[in-house]
Amino acid sequence: MRILVLGGDGYLGWPTAVDLASRGHDVAIVDNYVKRTIESKIGVTPLLEVPRLHDRSRQLAANTGWNIEVFIGDISKDYEFLSHVLNAFEPEAIVHYAEQPSAPYSMAGVEEAVFTQVNNVVGTLNLAFAVAERDPSIHIVKLGTMGEYGTPEIPIEEGWLEITHGGRHDRVLFPKRPHSIYHLSKVHDSNNLEFMCRTWGFRVTDLNQGVVYGHRTNYYDDAGFSTSFHYDGVFGTVINRFAVQAAMGMPLTVYGAGGQTRGYLNIKDTLECINLALLNPADAGEIRVFNQFTETFSVMDIARQVVEAAGNIGIQASIAHTDNPRNEKEEHFYEAAHTGLVGLGLQPHFMSHGLLEELLRDIQPWINRVNGGTILNSPTWTGVVERTPTHAR
Amino acid sequence: MRILVLGGDGYLGWPTAVDLASRGHDVAIVDNYVKRTIESKIGVTPLLEVPRLHDRSRQLAANTGWNIEVFIGDISKDYEFLSHVLNAFEPEAIVHYAEQPSAPYSMAGVEEAVFTQVNNVVGTLNLAFAVAERDPSIHIVKLGTMGEYGTPEIPIEEGWLEITHGGRHDRVLFPKRPHSIYHLSKVHDSNNLEFMCRTWGFRVTDLNQGVVYGHRTNYYDDAGFSTSFHYDGVFGTVINRFAVQAAMGMPLTVYGAGGQTRGYLNIKDTLECINLALLNPADAGEIRVFNQFTETFSVMDIARQVVEAAGNIGIQASIAHTDNPRNEKEEHFYEAAHTGLVGLGLQPHFMSHGLLEELLRDIQPWINRVNGGTILNSPTWTGVVERTPTHAR
Repeated sequence: MRILVLGGDGYLGWPTAVDLASRGHDVAIVDNYVKRTIESKIGVTPLLEVPRLHDRSRQLAANTGWNIEVFIGDISKDYEFLSHVLNAFEPEAIVHYAEQPSAPYSMAGVEEAVFTQVNNVVGTLNLAFAVAERDPSIHIVKLGTMGEYGTPEIPIEEGWLEITHGGRHDRVLFPKRPHSIYHLSKVHDSNNLEFMCRTWGFRVTDLNQGVVYGHRTNYYDDAGFSTSFHYDGVFGTVINRFAVQAAMGMPLTVYGAGGQTRGYLNIKDTLECINLALLNPADAGEIRVFNQFTETFSVMDIARQVVEAAGNIGIQASIAHTDNPRNEKEEHFYEAAHTGLVGLGLQPHFMSHGLLEELLRDIQPWINRVNGGTILNSPTWTGVVERTPTHAR
Repeated sequence: MRILVLGGDGYLGWPTAVDLASRGHDVAIVDNYVKRTIESKIGVTPLLEVPRLHDRSRQLAANTGWNIEVFIGDISKDYEFLSHVLNAFEPEAIVHYAEQPSAPYSMAGVEEAVFTQVNNVVGTLNLAFAVAERDPSIHIVKLGTMGEYGTPEIPIEEGWLEITHGGRHDRVLFPKRPHSIYHLSKVHDSNNLEFMCRTWGFRVTDLNQGVVYGHRTNYYDDAGFSTSFHYDGVFGTVINRFAVQAAMGMPLTVYGAGGQTRGYLNIKDTLECINLALLNPADAGEIRVFNQFTETFSVMDIARQVVEAAGNIGIQASIAHTDNPRNEKEEHFYEAAHTGLVGLGLQPHFMSHGLLEELLRDIQPWINRVNGGTILNSPTWTGVVERTPTHAR
C-alpha cells in the first residue's frame, strides 16, 4: 500500500513510518519541524537528539534497505505543497499526526493557543480539500485523543452514542468536554472530518488515542532512543516523565491528588493499531472512531508502579505531590469502551514491571543529558486569569 | 451599561448597536469591513449601499443624539488592537457578531473554508484571551446559530442535554452535526467558550440564532434600508431573498424539495433577545445557551406565504424548484426547544402576511438596484469532489 505519514518527525510519526516500511509498504513522510522550533523556543530537548529526516531516512535505508521518501513543508500554511505531495506520491492512505501535540503548550498564552488551533485545524482542513481534489476515496487515518472526551459522568463509547430522547432515537457524536485548547483542536478536527465524510463521501478512521509510553518498537537498533522521547512538562507523557525522574533519583511529581484516570498504551500498540486501521479501511462516507488504548490507570497507580519497578533494579524512588497546573478533576468516574481495535485483532502489550524496568535501564546511560529544570515547566491552566488586574483586586 | 458590539457593520450588528444606544447604553462597535471585502470579491452588494461606520455613527448622532464609538480593526489578526479596545472602552458586556456569516461562502473552496474557520475561531479565541486578561467577569454574548445542531432525529434542546447512559446520569453538550464549514466554525466557538467558562469562570450567553428576516427595527428612519440587506445566494437569508425575487417578478427559487425546516425570527426579535440576554447576564462559570428563534417553517411554507403576500399587493409570484446546492435532508424531523428567551420576557413578532407585504413594499422602490444574476450564485456543497479527476472516472 502507498502510505503517506504526516508529522513523520514526531515521537510516534517516525516509528510509524519505519514500522510501515518494515511491513513492505511504500512510505513517504511529511514534516515542517515545527515541534523542533517550539523545543528551541521553550528550551526543551528530547532525551537523545534525533537526526533530521533526510538523515534518518538515509541511515535507515543503509541499515535495512527500507526506503522512506521525505517531504519537508507545512501542511497548515502551504496548500500547494500538500497538493503537490499528494499528486507526486499518490497515497492510498494517509496517517495524520501533523499536529501540535502538547496540551500545556496550548495553555501558555494567546499566541500558543491560537497557533495550536490554527496549525491543527487548518492542517486538517487543507488535508481534506487536498484529498477531495485528488481522490476522495483515500483512507485518512487521523490521530485524535481520548482527551477529547474529557471525564464525563457516563461511560465513554467509541465516538458515537445511541440515544433515546423525547421518545425518539438517534446515533449521535459522543458529546465532548475536553480539558485544554489543544484537546479542543482535536475535537474541532473530528467535527470537521465527520462533515467531510457526510458531504464528500470520505473514508476516515479517527483514532482517539490514550497516553502513549515507551520507546522500543519492533525495529529497535543499537541507536537506542531513535525517536523523539520527551520527559519535560510540555511534551513528555506522564510515564516517560516518571521514568526519567526515577532514573535520576528525583521524586516522581504527581499533579495534585493523582486520582486522574486515563487510558494508556505502549508505543508498540500504537504502531499495531495504525497497521490494523490501514489493513481494514473505513467505508466510503464513514467516520469510524476507535478508542486507541489498552488499559486505564490513575496517575497514582502509575507512580506506584514506576517506584516498584525502580526498586526492583536497585533505584530508590519516591512520590511527591505538586500543585496541579491543569484544571481537571482529581478523583472521578472513568469508564471507556475500547473494543474496536481488539475486534480487528489487536493483542495488547500491557504495562508490566518488566517493561518499566527495561525503560528505566534504557534511560540510565543517558541520564547526564537530562535537564531536570524542564520536568516541572508546565504552564498553568489559570495563569491567564490569575495575571489580570481585576482578579488581583 | 457599557456594551461593545463586535461586527458592528453587519446586517444585525449595526441595528443592535443602534437599538442598544436608543435604550441609553454606552455603545462602541468594532469591525474590519471584511464582509465588504468579500462582497467586492464575489460581486454582490446589499440592496442599498450603507455608509461606512464613522459616517453612519455621525449621521445617527446628528439625527438622534445617540453616540456610538467606532473602532476599525481585525480582532482575528490583531490581538493588540482588541486588547486596546477593551482597555480603552472598558465594556461590561460584549456582543460578538464579528464572524464570516455565510455558509455558501465557506463551501466555495479551500481558501474560503480556511478563511471562515480561522477568522471565526481565532477572533473568538482572541476575544477570550483579551477578556481573561482584562476582566473575566465581562459578559460575552456570542452569536451562534441553530444550524450548529443540524437536523437530528431527536428533539433539539437548548445547548445541553440531560442524559442517562450505562445506568449513570450526566448533563452534556447537545451533540451537533452541522451542514457547512461555516456552521462548524460556530460549533468550534461554542466548544472553546464552554471550556473558557469551565476553566476561567467566564460568563457566556451563546445564542443559537435561527434565520433572521426583515430590516425594519424600532429605529427606522427615512433612509429605509439602513442596514446591510442582502438578497444574493451567498449572504442573503431565505425570506429576504424570496421577497426580492417576488418584488422583481422572478420565480421564488426553492432549493430541492423545500421540506427543509428551520427556526426563524424577525430582526426586531433579534434585537430584543440581545437586550434580554444583556439585562440578565449568565452566571460566573456558566455557558448559558438559548435557541434564538420564534417559529419554525419549511422552505416551501415560506415560499407559499411570500407568494400569497405578494398576491395581496397585486404582484403575481410563483415558485420554482432548483437543484439544491447544499447537502441536507429535504424532508426530515425537526423539533427544537426555544423557551429560554421567552422565559426572560421575549414577546415575538411572528411572521404574517401584513409583515411580508410591508417588506415587499419597502423593496419595490429599489428593485432597479437588484442584480438578479447574484440570486442563484451559491457555490455547491459537493463542487470540490465533483471537480476531481478520479470522481469523473
